[in-house]
Amino acid sequence: MENATAPKPHVVIVGAGFGGLEAAQKLGKEEVRVTVIDRTNHHLFQPLLYEVATAALSPADIAAPIRGILNRFANTEVILGEVKSVNVAAKTLSTGDGDIAYDYLILATGSRHSYFGHDEWEKLAPGLKSLEDAVEIRRRLLLAFEYAEKITDEAAKVAAMTFVIIGGGPTGVEIAGAIAEISRYTLAKDFRHIDPSSARVVLVEGDQRVLSGFPEDLSASAMKQLKDLGVEVRTGIHAKNLTDAGLEVGNEFIPCRVKIWAAGNVASFVGKTLGVPADKAGRVIVNEDLTIPGHPEVQVIGDLANFSHQGGKPLPGVSPVAMQQGRHAVRNILAMIEGRKPQRFRYWDKGSMATIGRNKAVADLNFLHLSGLPAWLVWLFIHIIFLVGFRSRIVVLLQWAWAYVTFNKGARLITRNFQAESRPLN
Amino acid sequence: MENATAPKPHVVIVGAGFGGLEAAQKLGKEEVRVTVIDRTNHHLFQPLLYEVATAALSPADIAAPIRGILNRFANTEVILGEVKSVNVAAKTLSTGDGDIAYDYLILATGSRHSYFGHDEWEKLAPGLKSLEDAVEIRRRLLLAFEYAEKITDEAAKVAAMTFVIIGGGPTGVEIAGAIAEISRYTLAKDFRHIDPSSARVVLVEGDQRVLSGFPEDLSASAMKQLKDLGVEVRTGIHAKNLTDAGLEVGNEFIPCRVKIWAAGNVASFVGKTLGVPADKAGRVIVNEDLTIPGHPEVQVIGDLANFSHQGGKPLPGVSPVAMQQGRHAVRNILAMIEGRKPQRFRYWDKGSMATIGRNKAVADLNFLHLSGLPAWLVWLFIHIIFLVGFRSRIVVLLQWAWAYVTFNKGARLITRNFQAESRPLN
Repeated sequence: MENATAPKPHVVIVGAGFGGLEAAQKLGKEEVRVTVIDRTNHHLFQPLLYEVATAALSPADIAAPIRGILNRFANTEVILGEVKSVNVAAKTLSTGDGDIAYDYLILATGSRHSYFGHDEWEKLAPGLKSLEDAVEIRRRLLLAFEYAEKITDEAAKVAAMTFVIIGGGPTGVEIAGAIAEISRYTLAKDFRHIDPSSARVVLVEGDQRVLSGFPEDLSASAMKQLKDLGVEVRTGIHAKNLTDAGLEVGNEFIPCRVKIWAAGNVASFVGKTLGVPADKAGRVIVNEDLTIPGHPEVQVIGDLANFSHQGGKPLPGVSPVAMQQGRHAVRNILAMIEGRKPQRFRYWDKGSMATIGRNKAVADLNFLHLSGLPAWLVWLFIHIIFLVGFRSRIVVLLQWAWAYVTFNKGARLITRNFQAESRPLN
Repeated sequence: MENATAPKPHVVIVGAGFGGLEAAQKLGKEEVRVTVIDRTNHHLFQPLLYEVATAALSPADIAAPIRGILNRFANTEVILGEVKSVNVAAKTLSTGDGDIAYDYLILATGSRHSYFGHDEWEKLAPGLKSLEDAVEIRRRLLLAFEYAEKITDEAAKVAAMTFVIIGGGPTGVEIAGAIAEISRYTLAKDFRHIDPSSARVVLVEGDQRVLSGFPEDLSASAMKQLKDLGVEVRTGIHAKNLTDAGLEVGNEFIPCRVKIWAAGNVASFVGKTLGVPADKAGRVIVNEDLTIPGHPEVQVIGDLANFSHQGGKPLPGVSPVAMQQGRHAVRNILAMIEGRKPQRFRYWDKGSMATIGRNKAVADLNFLHLSGLPAWLVWLFIHIIFLVGFRSRIVVLLQWAWAYVTFNKGARLITRNFQAESRPLN
């Protein structure tokens, strides 16, 4: 029998990324009160962020207002705000607008780029985590061509048309491929004093191969597909120094105007305020049931969590991990409400994929490795299916179809004042 | 017989709005060399800018890269840059990147908002001319609801949910209608502590009626349609003072957080450097053939021109005037190249229209006045037809269809850091 007078347990979810949003959607129909807190007003479909950075899609195509997604759940409240710290003893969160008490907490604040102690590089080589990041990279990319078109100094022209991407994981590979495509196809006929298709795209990776999280045959295939697009892939070397003028790698200095960082992540600072052990990247080391030591009412999921109870290595920071953990955290909370124990989490790895360009991708489906067109079709299908919002799905599909036929990318907008940028950027 | 060794005349077009772009497209196939200079890299479909400001469309839906539009014309070069002044004696333009010489000049740099000597109001009440303006207004609009949801002070809540639009021309009417719609329909279920449909939308107009450029019966109809949407229309009063806290009109102070300026325009400063007479709004007073006194090689078109040779009053600052003048300027230039005289310009007025909301609009087709659904359908049809870019047309149509069925507006994104905004805006 339901007791109408007993207050419902209050579940607070911090972060409406893939993990947090999945948890919120599962809790929407349960007998709990839910509060979702995020720093932005939108859920971001991060896997397509590189398409905004390279002018193929618009911000609104890959982001949906959190309130709009969750407004059908009467038990759910959304707060636009930033959580500063967690007080696990008092069961409260501190935000800029006051404290919020919880009975159960799902912490899913994700990660930011890490510059390995060189925070001064952030300005020189932005990373790609938010819509603002993407629009800024798009602006730099398009302005570099505008600048090259106008100047007469040959060395400066070459530096303006050299694009360096630091980090050969999926994000780095996707950006490098997309920049090569936009220069070879989309912009090819737009200029009179430069040939955009001669742009140099350099992908720098410290490891011996790109996509080091993938099987070796797929890394090799990705490398070949990148080279087919004209991307220079440099493995086994590390960024030694970054300046306005370019990048120092090994014994070489590559003069380049636009540098993009895709080399590392560090977990959100909120994890540190829990007072439990974290790894070097700041990720909270969670129990095998996703709770933290001593506080089963607190669960940490997604990029913020280091879950090493399966195979020894931490699970990767990808959306399927976050979503499965989000669902598991909900099951745990419902169990605890009923007086049962939280259960062990097990990740079901359905594979991983990375796209490189038109008809170019790799997909590791565990039982099957795909490259090229078949991998790209699988990638396309999966990304359309999972894109939040029916409207977005149709619009994005349409824009991709249009771009596929015409090589045209419609979102080539430079916004914000460019006057300060007539000099070299940064 | 063509003389292959004679250099082709160089036509420079400054500004790629409706007038400049129309001229560029006509000149693309002629025996001239064309240079198009614009401060931004995109042509903007300004009539739909209010749809970006009110979260219905994305910037890329209503803007197209100028290079992309003109790249099929081998005789045309596009420069991203700002013209500082014109030297009519030397036939040169001064830009931040050096001087540019012309044989013929089409000046089409348009207008900006005018605050009638109160430039300090710009920060408090942004106008709507550029994509940046639209994204800024969208941000303020959405943040006002977020702020109202969080605070407990009743007066501040009411001020946050009061939106004042200053100026009852087409832009003001369109924004007021769109804000009323987004609060009544789109956001209605998104919040838990406020009722967005109780938002107060106030349209302030100094004249005795809104849309004073339209026939009186259509003004009255627009007024009624606005009231049906819940917009408070206040005519015959002027903005006396603007502060962070609100707007002073007549003897009344309206506390409001978000204020939007749609009250007046001033022509671009470039017109002044021509050294010929201008009107109070800074518009260049052109000859009846669109040239300026003493310099037939210089033509001024669109919002920058005061053309009063037809009916005595200056032609309105609308896109059909700019486009017809763009085409006429091209005809004049081709005539002058062949040694003939520039001809008198005649505007063919096909009518005007303004939209208010879903199924709500007015259209003055001269022989016929339309209101409500028929006017709205005409508006929809014309705007889709004239929207630049095939892709844009389909995407916008689809988004409108989706919004029509669901009342959902997909571009409800708050970008840029909102942290500084937890206090009252501005």
